Amino acid sequence: MATVRDISLAAAINIFSAFIFLILFAILRLQPINDRVYFPKWYFKGIRDSPTQSGGFVTKFVNCDFKSYLRFLSWMPEAIKMPELELIDHAGLDSAVYIRIYLLGLKIFVPFMVFALCILVPFNCGGRSLEDLKDVTFSDIDKLSISNVAPRSERFWAHLVMAYVFSFWTFYVLYKEYKVIAFMRLRFLASERRRPDQFTVLVRNVPPDTDETINEHLEHFFCVNHPDHYLTHQVVYNANYLSKLVEKKKKIQNWLDYYEIKYSKNSGKRPSTKTGFLGLCGKRVDALEYYTQKVVKLSEEEANERERVINDPKAIMPVAFVSFKTRWGAAVCAQTQQSSNPTLWLTEWAPEPCDVYWPNLAIPYVKLTIRRLIMAVALFFLTFFFMIPIAFVQSLASLEGIERVVPFLSPIMEIKVIKSFIQGFLPGIALKIFLILLPKILMTMSKIEGFVSLSTLERRSAAKYYLFILVNVFLGSIITGTAFEQLNSLIKQSASNIPITVGVAIPLKATFFITYIMVDGWSGVAAEILRVKPLIMYHLRNTFIVKTEQDRQQAMDPGSLEFASSEPRIQFYFLLGLVYSVVTPILLPFIVIFFGFAYVVFRHQIINVYHQQYESGAAFWPDVHRRILYAMIISQILLMGLMTSKKASDSTPLLLVLPILTVWFHVLCKTRFEPAFVKFPLQDAMVRDTLERATDPAFNLKAYLHEAYIHPVFKNDNIEQPAAMDEEESNPLVRTRRSSHNTASGPVKHGFEFGS
Amino acid sequence: MATVRDISLAAAINIFSAFIFLILFAILRLQPINDRVYFPKWYFKGIRDSPTQSGGFVTKFVNCDFKSYLRFLSWMPEAIKMPELELIDHAGLDSAVYIRIYLLGLKIFVPFMVFALCILVPFNCGGRSLEDLKDVTFSDIDKLSISNVAPRSERFWAHLVMAYVFSFWTFYVLYKEYKVIAFMRLRFLASERRRPDQFTVLVRNVPPDTDETINEHLEHFFCVNHPDHYLTHQVVYNANYLSKLVEKKKKIQNWLDYYEIKYSKNSGKRPSTKTGFLGLCGKRVDALEYYTQKVVKLSEEEANERERVINDPKAIMPVAFVSFKTRWGAAVCAQTQQSSNPTLWLTEWAPEPCDVYWPNLAIPYVKLTIRRLIMAVALFFLTFFFMIPIAFVQSLASLEGIERVVPFLSPIMEIKVIKSFIQGFLPGIALKIFLILLPKILMTMSKIEGFVSLSTLERRSAAKYYLFILVNVFLGSIITGTAFEQLNSLIKQSASNIPITVGVAIPLKATFFITYIMVDGWSGVAAEILRVKPLIMYHLRNTFIVKTEQDRQQAMDPGSLEFASSEPRIQFYFLLGLVYSVVTPILLPFIVIFFGFAYVVFRHQIINVYHQQYESGAAFWPDVHRRILYAMIISQILLMGLMTSKKASDSTPLLLVLPILTVWFHVLCKTRFEPAFVKFPLQDAMVRDTLERATDPAFNLKAYLHEAYIHPVFKNDNIEQPAAMDEEESNPLVRTRRSSHNTASGPVKHGFEFGS
Repeated sequence: MATVRDISLAAAINIFSAFIFLILFAILRLQPINDRVYFPKWYFKGIRDSPTQSGGFVTKFVNCDFKSYLRFLSWMPEAIKMPELELIDHAGLDSAVYIRIYLLGLKIFVPFMVFALCILVPFNCGGRSLEDLKDVTFSDIDKLSISNVAPRSERFWAHLVMAYVFSFWTFYVLYKEYKVIAFMRLRFLASERRRPDQFTVLVRNVPPDTDETINEHLEHFFCVNHPDHYLTHQVVYNANYLSKLVEKKKKIQNWLDYYEIKYSKNSGKRPSTKTGFLGLCGKRVDALEYYTQKVVKLSEEEANERERVINDPKAIMPVAFVSFKTRWGAAVCAQTQQSSNPTLWLTEWAPEPCDVYWPNLAIPYVKLTIRRLIMAVALFFLTFFFMIPIAFVQSLASLEGIERVVPFLSPIMEIKVIKSFIQGFLPGIALKIFLILLPKILMTMSKIEGFVSLSTLERRSAAKYYLFILVNVFLGSIITGTAFEQLNSLIKQSASNIPITVGVAIPLKATFFITYIMVDGWSGVAAEILRVKPLIMYHLRNTFIVKTEQDRQQAMDPGSLEFASSEPRIQFYFLLGLVYSVVTPILLPFIVIFFGFAYVVFRHQIINVYHQQYESGAAFWPDVHRRILYAMIISQILLMGLMTSKKASDSTPLLLVLPILTVWFHVLCKTRFEPAFVKFPLQDAMVRDTLERATDPAFNLKAYLHEAYIHPVFKNDNIEQPAAMDEEESNPLVRTRRSSHNTASGPVKHGFEFGS
Repeated sequence: MATVRDISLAAAINIFSAFIFLILFAILRLQPINDRVYFPKWYFKGIRDSPTQSGGFVTKFVNCDFKSYLRFLSWMPEAIKMPELELIDHAGLDSAVYIRIYLLGLKIFVPFMVFALCILVPFNCGGRSLEDLKDVTFSDIDKLSISNVAPRSERFWAHLVMAYVFSFWTFYVLYKEYKVIAFMRLRFLASERRRPDQFTVLVRNVPPDTDETINEHLEHFFCVNHPDHYLTHQVVYNANYLSKLVEKKKKIQNWLDYYEIKYSKNSGKRPSTKTGFLGLCGKRVDALEYYTQKVVKLSEEEANERERVINDPKAIMPVAFVSFKTRWGAAVCAQTQQSSNPTLWLTEWAPEPCDVYWPNLAIPYVKLTIRRLIMAVALFFLTFFFMIPIAFVQSLASLEGIERVVPFLSPIMEIKVIKSFIQGFLPGIALKIFLILLPKILMTMSKIEGFVSLSTLERRSAAKYYLFILVNVFLGSIITGTAFEQLNSLIKQSASNIPITVGVAIPLKATFFITYIMVDGWSGVAAEILRVKPLIMYHLRNTFIVKTEQDRQQAMDPGSLEFASSEPRIQFYFLLGLVYSVVTPILLPFIVIFFGFAYVVFRHQIINVYHQQYESGAAFWPDVHRRILYAMIISQILLMGLMTSKKASDSTPLLLVLPILTVWFHVLCKTRFEPAFVKFPLQDAMVRDTLERATDPAFNLKAYLHEAYIHPVFKNDNIEQPAAMDEEESNPLVRTRRSSHNTASGPVKHGFEFGS
C-alpha cells in the first residue's frame, strides 16, 4: 500500500520531469531552426514564411537572445489569451470544441474537489474504522477514503447526498455545455462562407439500369423527383488501385530525390543501393538509374490505369455526389427517403470534400452489413482476448522460446547482458508494441466497416478505443488478471455481485490510479508539447530530401489532432474522476491538475501546431457527451455495489434512482440537441439561400461545384463529364477554385513516409 | 406430473367444449334476429340492410330452414375462400395483415412440427435416461422431451442442429413475410384513393410569438420555408371539456330515449327514477321531466363552452395540421427538421382523420418527456409488483378481513354457502378483475404518455402487455412465486445461472403449457366466434333504446379488432412454440392447431364482424416482427442454459452464435424494411402527384382538405377560418366530402355505453 509519502514522492518526480519537459520546450521552441516544428500552423496559414528572427548565420539556427529564455512559461498566457471566437476562426470549430472537453473537465471537477475535500474528507477521516483493525495494513490515503468509514455507519448519508449533488451538478454542466456547443455549431454553420458540401448530397446504392448508364440514370432520377432543385452530379470512379500507384510513385520519387541530393553533395561518386528488402540485401545497383527507371515504369502504369478507369464503365461506382441549386433542396434530399426500397438511392449529407474517405466509396452497399457484423465480433474478441496472441509472442520471446526457434543463437544469449535484456525487456515490448499499434488497428477496423468520411472513421475508432480502455485499463486494473479471466470470473458470479466485487476493489486501487494520472496524464501532456518525434523527423527530412519550399511544407506538416486516440483517453480521466469523487476524493486534485494543464497545452497546440485535415463542425460532441454519461452510470452502479458491501444497503433504492435519472437525462439531451449535429434545419437553409440570392444573384453555382467532389488523383485530369455539364467545362472560375481545394485536401498527410 | 392420458383427457374436454361453441355459433348465427350481431360488417358497408330471409313473423326471428343447420361448418370454407386482395379491399390492410400473423405461425410451426416429430422425438425416446432413474416420477410426455436424454450424451448434437435449422427457417419465413407485407403496404398506399393525410403533416410545439397569433405565425412560417408547396393549415382547439360535455349529453339523451320508449309502451304510467347513484338511491322524480331538464341544461352549457373555445385565443393549442399542395411537399415536410431548435416546429405525418386521438393534442410538448419517464417507472412496478395490491385486496376479501371491516355482516357470513363462496371465490376474483382491467390500464398509461393517434396508442399498449405476459405468464409459470420474488431470487443468482435456472425448469412445465394452450387458446378462439357479450348487449339495447335505424347501427357496432390485447397473446404462443420446439416437440401440434383454428376464425370475423375504426396500413408489423425475434433470442438463451445443465456445455459457443445472428438479422430487417413503415418515399409521392395532375387537373384540393382535420365536436359548426381560407368557405364540395367523413370517423365506438 502506498502511503502519502510515496505518493508525494511520485508526484515530485512527475512534476520535476514535466518541468524538465517544459524547460526543454522553452529552449527548443525559441530556436529559429525549430520554428517550423513548433509553429507550423502559422506557415500553413501563410501568416509566417520564415523564422521571425533575422541576422547572421548563427542566429538563423540558434536563438542568442538570452532574455527570451527567462520568460520560459510565456506561451501559457499567450495560449489562453486568444478569445474563443478568434480561436474558432483560426483553428476551426473542431479544435476549439475539442479543447472545451478539457474545460468541461475543469467545470465538473473543480466544484467536485472543493465540495469533496471540505465535506467528505472530514467525514471519512472521522470514521476511524481502519485504525480499529490492527492487523490490516492501510495507508494514509485510505484514511481519507470511504474505506475508513465503518460498515452500517450513519456517515454514509453524507456520501449518498454527495453522490446526488455531484450527479446533478454534472447534469447541469453537461446540459449547459451541450447547449452552448449546439449553438456554436449552428452559428458556425450559418456564418461559414459558401462550401460545396452545403449543396451536395451523397447518394449511395444507385440501382443498375439496363437501358441507361449510371450517369444518365442519376440525372433522370433527380430531374424527375427533385425537379425544381436538382443541379448537377458527380459520379465516383473506383480509383483505389490508381491512387495506390500514385502513392507508390511518390515514395519512389522521394528516394530518387534523396539520392540526387546525395549525388550533388559529394559529386563524382554515384550512389548505389541494393534491390532487396529495405535496401539491405540483393544485388547492388546504381541508385539514380534504378529509381529513375522505377519512376518511369510506374508513370507508365499509372497513365494506363488512369485511362482504364476513365473509360471503363465498370469503374463507375453506383455512388454519386448530387448537387442542388439551393441549400434547401440539398437539405430536403439528405433527410428524406427517395425510393420505396429503402436500401436504394440512399441519401446523406456529403462530407466536406477533404473529409471524404475515397477508398470506402467503392464498397458495395450490400456488403456493409456483413462487414459490420464481422467487425463487431472482432472487436469483442480484440477487447476480451487480446492477451492470448500477446502471451504467445511473449512465450516465444522468452529465453527458451528463442533457443528453441533459432538454436544457433544460444551461445550469444548466454552473455549476461543480453540474457537479462531478453528476460526483462522483450516480453514487455510485445505488449507495448501492441498498444502503440492499437489505434491503427482500430482505425483499420473502422475502415473495413466502410464509413465514407474521415470524421466518421475517427469517431468510430474512438468508440472502439473507449471500450478497450474501459475493459482493459479500468476494469483490468481493478480486477487483476487478463480481461478474459475477469470476464470468466465475472460471468460466474451473481448478477448483483458484479458491482459489489468491483466496488469493493475500487478504494484499494486509488493510489494506483493516482500514480497513473501523474505518469500517463501529467507527463504525457508535457511530452505532447515537446513534440519529440516530429522534431526529429522534421530535421531528418529537412536534411535529406527537402529541395523545394513545397517539400518543406510537406516535411513540417503536423497533421491533425488525433481525435480517435486522445478523446477516449480524456474520457478515462472523466471516468476516474466520477468514480472516485465520492469514494476517494483525494484523487480529484490530481485530475483537476491534469485537466488544467492539458487545457493550456492543447490550446497552445491547436493555435500553433495542428492543422486539421477536415472540419466536421464539432460533430463529435454527442459522442463525448454520451461517454461521460456512460462513465456516470458506471460510477453510480459501482457506488451502489460499494455501499452494499458496507452494509449500507438501505441506500440502494435511493442510489438506484441515479442511473435511471442519468438514462432519462441522456434521452432528454438526445432529443433536445442531437438533431443539431445530424440534420440541417430547413429554416436556416432557407435564410441562407435567400440571403445569398440577394447578395450574389449572378453567382455560377454549377461552375463552383463542378470539380468539388472529384477523386484527388483526378484533380488535374480532364475527366469526361456527363453531357449536361459540358457547357461549363471551360469556365475559368473552375481552375482557380480547384487549385485552392488541391492544397487543402489530398494526400498531404499520408504523402510521405520516410524510409518505409 | 401429467401423463399422456391426462393430456388426452384435457384435450378431449377442450375439443368437446370448442365443438359445443361451434354448434351454438352455427345455430345462433343462422337466426335472422342475430344477423346484425354475427354479420354487422355487411350492414356497415351498406351491402345488407335487413336479415336475408324474408317471410312471416316467426321466420323473421328464427330460422326454420333446417337444412341449413346441417352445414354447420360451412362458414369455414367461406371464410377461407375470399382471396387476399378482395379481403384487403373489404376489410382494410390492417385486418388482412393481422390475420397473416396466424398464417405466419402456421408457416413457422408446421415445418417445425414435422421435423421435430420425425427427428427429435425418436432421438429423445431413445434416450432412456429417465427410465434408469427409478426414484424420480416422470410422465410419458417427459419421455418424448429432452429430459429423457442423459447428460453428456452425443444425442444433443441433434438438438443443436435442429436449433440451427429452426432458427434459419424462422429467419427465412420472417424475412419473406416482412418483404411481402412491406410490398403490400406500399401497394396499398399507392392504390389508395386520395386521402387527407397524404397531404397533411402534424406540426407540434409551434413557438409562441409576441406579435402574431398562432394562426398567422403558422402561415408565415410555412409560406417562407415551404414557399412552393404550402397550401393551408388547420389549428387545433383544446376542446377536451367540450367533448366531455357532448359525451355526457349523449348518455343522458340515451336515458331519456329509454324512458320515452318505456312511457310509450305502457302509456299513461309516467316512468320515474331516483336522482342518486345509478338511479338506485336519492329522491324519486319523474324520469322524463328529470332527463329533459338535464339535457336542456347540458345543451346550454355545451353551447357556452363551444362559444368560449372558438373565441378564446388561449384555447388554440400550439399544434396544427398543415396541408401541402402535393404529396411530395408533405413528404418533405414530414421527414425534415424545420427549425434549428429541434424541439420546435416538430413535424410528423398526420394520422388519418379517424385515427387522431384528440385529447392528447392538447398536452404541452415539454411535459411529454416527464410523462414518459413516469410511465416507464410505473410499468416497471406494475409488471413486477402488481401482486402486492392484489394480495392486499385478497387479504381484505378473506373471511377475517371482511369481519374486521364490516362486523355487522358476520352473522350472514356464518352461513355455510356464503362462507365457502367467500373463501373459495373472492380471492381469485380480485386477480381476475385485475387481469380483465389490465388492457384498459395499459391503454390509459399509453394515453398518459401522450401519443396522438389511436394506432400508436394501440401499438404502445401492446408492447406493455407483451412485457407483462412475458414476465408474469411465461417466467411466472416457469418459476413459481410472484414476479417480485422471482426478480429477487434471479438477481441474487449468478448472471450466467439465470438461463440455467429457467432452462432447467422449462421441460418440466411443458404439460402445464399444453393445457394452457388448450384452455386459453382453443377455447378462447371458439368463444371469440360465439360473441356472447355482444350478442347479449345487442339484444338488450335493441329492446330498450333502439328507436331509429341509426340507433340500431350504433347498437350493433362491433368495434375494432383489439390489437392491443390480442397481438401480445398471439406472441405468447410464438414464444411457447419457439422455446419448446427443441425441448418438448410434442407441444408443437397443439400450437399448430391453435394457429390454424384461430386463422380461420379471425378470417371469418374480419370478413363478417369487425369494423376497423382507422386504417394504419399495417404500421404494426415491425412490432410483430421484433417481438418474434425477442422470443427467438429468449428461446436460444434458455436452450443454452438447459444444455449447460445437461453438461453439454461444449455446445455453448455454437449456441452463442444464434442470438448474435438473431440480433444481426434484426438490424438487417430494420434497415431493409422498417423505413417502408415509417417514411414515405419521394419517388412514390412524385409518381402519384404527377398522375393526379394529369387525370384530375381541376381538382380543388384546398376545398377537399378544408375540414378534414377538424375536431369531431366542431364537425357541424362553422368555425372561423384563417383569412386566407375564406374564399373557399362556401364551396359546396366541402359539405359532401365532410359528411362522408362524418360517418367513418367520430365517436361511433365510444358513443354509447349502456347503463354506465
